Amino acid sequence: MPTSKKRIHLAAFMNAGPMGTVGWRHPEADPGFLTAEYYTSVARTLEAAKFDLVFIPDSLAVPRSLGGSFAPAVTHGAGTPRLDPIPVISIISAVTSRLGVVSTSSTGYSAPYSVARSYATLDHLSGGRAGWNVVTSFQDAEAQNYGQPALPARPERYARAEEFLEAVTRLWDSWGDDSVIADRASGVFGDAETVHAIDFVGRHLSVQGPLGVPRSPQGYPVIVQAGASPEGRDFAARWSDVIFCSHDSLESAVEFYADVKRRAADHGRDPDQIKILPAIAPILAPSRAEAEEKHRVFERLVDPVAGLSRLAYHINFDLTAYDLDGPLPDIDVQGVQGHYREVVERARRTGMTIRQLGSWYGARTEGDMLGSAAEVADRLELWVEAGAADGFMVIATQVPTAFAEFAEQVVPELQRRGVFREEYEGTTLREHLGLRRPERGEWRNRARSGGAR
Amino acid sequence: MPTSKKRIHLAAFMNAGPMGTVGWRHPEADPGFLTAEYYTSVARTLEAAKFDLVFIPDSLAVPRSLGGSFAPAVTHGAGTPRLDPIPVISIISAVTSRLGVVSTSSTGYSAPYSVARSYATLDHLSGGRAGWNVVTSFQDAEAQNYGQPALPARPERYARAEEFLEAVTRLWDSWGDDSVIADRASGVFGDAETVHAIDFVGRHLSVQGPLGVPRSPQGYPVIVQAGASPEGRDFAARWSDVIFCSHDSLESAVEFYADVKRRAADHGRDPDQIKILPAIAPILAPSRAEAEEKHRVFERLVDPVAGLSRLAYHINFDLTAYDLDGPLPDIDVQGVQGHYREVVERARRTGMTIRQLGSWYGARTEGDMLGSAAEVADRLELWVEAGAADGFMVIATQVPTAFAEFAEQVVPELQRRGVFREEYEGTTLREHLGLRRPERGEWRNRARSGGAR
Ligand SMILES: Cc1cc2nc3c(=O)[nH]c(=O)nc-3n(C[C@H](O)[C@H](O)[C@H](O)COP(=O)(O)O)c2cc1C
Ligand SMILES: Cc1cc2nc3c(=O)[nH]c(=O)nc-3n(C[C@H](O)[C@H](O)[C@H](O)COP(=O)(O)O)c2cc1C
Repeated sequence: MPTSKKRIHLAAFMNAGPMGTVGWRHPEADPGFLTAEYYTSVARTLEAAKFDLVFIPDSLAVPRSLGGSFAPAVTHGAGTPRLDPIPVISIISAVTSRLGVVSTSSTGYSAPYSVARSYATLDHLSGGRAGWNVVTSFQDAEAQNYGQPALPARPERYARAEEFLEAVTRLWDSWGDDSVIADRASGVFGDAETVHAIDFVGRHLSVQGPLGVPRSPQGYPVIVQAGASPEGRDFAARWSDVIFCSHDSLESAVEFYADVKRRAADHGRDPDQIKILPAIAPILAPSRAEAEEKHRVFERLVDPVAGLSRLAYHINFDLTAYDLDGPLPDIDVQGVQGHYREVVERARRTGMTIRQLGSWYGARTEGDMLGSAAEVADRLELWVEAGAADGFMVIATQVPTAFAEFAEQVVPELQRRGVFREEYEGTTLREHLGLRRPERGEWRNRARSGGAR
Repeated sequence: MPTSKKRIHLAAFMNAGPMGTVGWRHPEADPGFLTAEYYTSVARTLEAAKFDLVFIPDSLAVPRSLGGSFAPAVTHGAGTPRLDPIPVISIISAVTSRLGVVSTSSTGYSAPYSVARSYATLDHLSGGRAGWNVVTSFQDAEAQNYGQPALPARPERYARAEEFLEAVTRLWDSWGDDSVIADRASGVFGDAETVHAIDFVGRHLSVQGPLGVPRSPQGYPVIVQAGASPEGRDFAARWSDVIFCSHDSLESAVEFYADVKRRAADHGRDPDQIKILPAIAPILAPSRAEAEEKHRVFERLVDPVAGLSRLAYHINFDLTAYDLDGPLPDIDVQGVQGHYREVVERARRTGMTIRQLGSWYGARTEGDMLGSAAEVADRLELWVEAGAADGFMVIATQVPTAFAEFAEQVVPELQRRGVFREEYEGTTLREHLGLRRPERGEWRNRARSGGAR
């Protein structure tokens, strides 16, 4: 086994609800996404295949992407239902012993004390396997479920996120690693000298502390982010241990990778301590032609309006207000979430009608990974060697078969090539990812305030 | 088996952290309260004993009960650590199949969309076993962890709680029981006609809806509350399915029971659809004398300052500012949480010094249930027959042995007497408790607005 090759990390992307636009409709899809068994059985498959982690995204609303109405999302099952991801990763942690468990919480609609406590709790209960995907959210409907008239502008969202991360990491550091003594003879439980309030006072939020939970096994649960805009990249380069992204081409993936690692180095961080995982949605078949045929099954299931609903949700722009058989109107791509700009630009370049865009986008799969296990493994190795990725986030087109096929076909192929583990070497998610455990006080190196607050 | 007797319901009170003032110090206490195994193993014991539910309380701060400092709480392990209860009940639900799982969330420091979603999720994932203990919180330190200078006054807390419950129940009702169609052939996932926004606009909070989670197995997860003040009793009588309380005497328990059931009837509810469960902390031994000896083990472990810290936390009044060997100062019992007024009154009546009160309160066990299994069973039956209880919330003085002893000794005794189930008759928590499943729209019968909003 060639040991000089760079090892690949694997994350699995699973909604707490049906997958994608038509995931629930696919003939192989398990309809049990409101039951515990659905999640625990996939988790067992992923752990047997030695995945680094399972990741659950989140959205705090039924999308109101078309004409301000939630009805299309309900009718098509697009972007809804979405369960609370925290109970989902909790139950997954209870039936696994190595798999990392990562879920998403927004800095816009929750409080740092609550988020710090949830992930510290999960880190304790899972024995050091928890991670938090930090999002600033992007739908007006989410703001409206939390008493706000509309989504705040991106700079304001990231300003709040910055304070939020500083407060959360300081809460995680409010107990030292040795603060719990628990000496029954003397009756001393904690070393109060080493437990500190944080007395954080920001412009957007304030927290007194200390946290009611001792420092957790990983020091900080793994911090994940997926910023794509310049603000988002800077934020991720400072705070994140893992970065998810989505690219339509190898070129844009390489640009993103180099840019974020350079930003990290500029902030004084070791770029190797940030793992970048582009999203891919492999479609496996004995040959590329058969994989394309398999993909056509999806295309036939996708209603163009469901595709436009998903797109409207991602780009916050409703195309159904225009003639579906006409060309794309002007869309201000600066206002669009970073990763999705490429989508709009590509559609314009290829001259699609709005209806064609809906069909294409509804059935679109990330990373163009269609083919045999060997072909997909070739592409994964190519991306890593080209400097586009430290690993991948595998999106299942439908659950559970897409994960099962990846586990049965691609994982052994990667293991044969010596680029993926055959056994877990450690027990914590940081160990799987090759990330060191942050010392107490690490937040000073990551916060924009640098500890000056 | 005499079947005419009223059946008793049993809940188990378990902190997401050490028990009581000295629970961690007790020689039989499992020190693993930061691990999953601690909770899952107790849950298995409780399910084997056919308990209705396990209940996890919550507190959103390290108590700053003495001189505004959190140090005594850390030093004594009194009221801290406290994990997030939602992951705890999630993992419990994953290793059990019948036991009800109830945790606590405050209406003061979270948002209705989040709370509605968490418990609806748990209700789906557990197959209809979830419950929410509604609290309005009572410590300044909690407010200060959420950007507020101090705890709002009780009327304001209950005014917000009222809006919160109306919003949450309406979110639970935003999908109908038949809204999910999931017809693969036609591609129709949901019946959008039957899914409604709630457009709730209150004085304290606003929520648009609909919830991103379909109506859950129990319709509404079981609603639990423990109000003791007149405001709290009125709120509980309208909203609750289950009411927890704490009484030092049978007389006060009878008064409370009659008052709350009458209030429920006044609001047009069937009083039998509200289950009142006083807290008890049994200490079991072959005889009462031996049980008292066993209790003395606790008393010796309790530092009077730890006891005063616990009391200060419960009554929001710091007695360490006074001479510990002097008498109680004047305490405004109207400002004190209802259940704890009795404690203050009793201490004054018996002429304890502050130090004696600290020792006594730190080792105090609810309900005066010391003795053999037969004696404890006698008292439980007496309380039920006297009209003080529909069942009990069993507090473990230490985990796991106190639960194990109750399960091994008292449960079989109650079963022999025909007052406790030998097998679960149903699968949902509502079925265990003999509570009917609320129809969609039930919130109108419970909300003060009566649906006029
Ligand atoms: C793989 C991936 C997963 C994401 N998951 C979520 C999510 O669960 N919830 C969410 O609100 N945003 C999610 N996002 C959006 C990002 O958090 C971020 O807002 C987006 O990439 C735009 O970047 P920007 O904030 O810099 O504009 C995800 C993005 C990617 C690429
Ligand atoms: C058995 C029991 C359990 C309770 N659990 C909690 C809890 O977990 N968190 C909390 O903030 N308050 C808890 N409380 C306090 C009640 O929610 C309530 O605030 C208290 O009984 C005072 O009533 P009042 O609000 O009417 O003054 C509990 C009370 C009792 C009796």
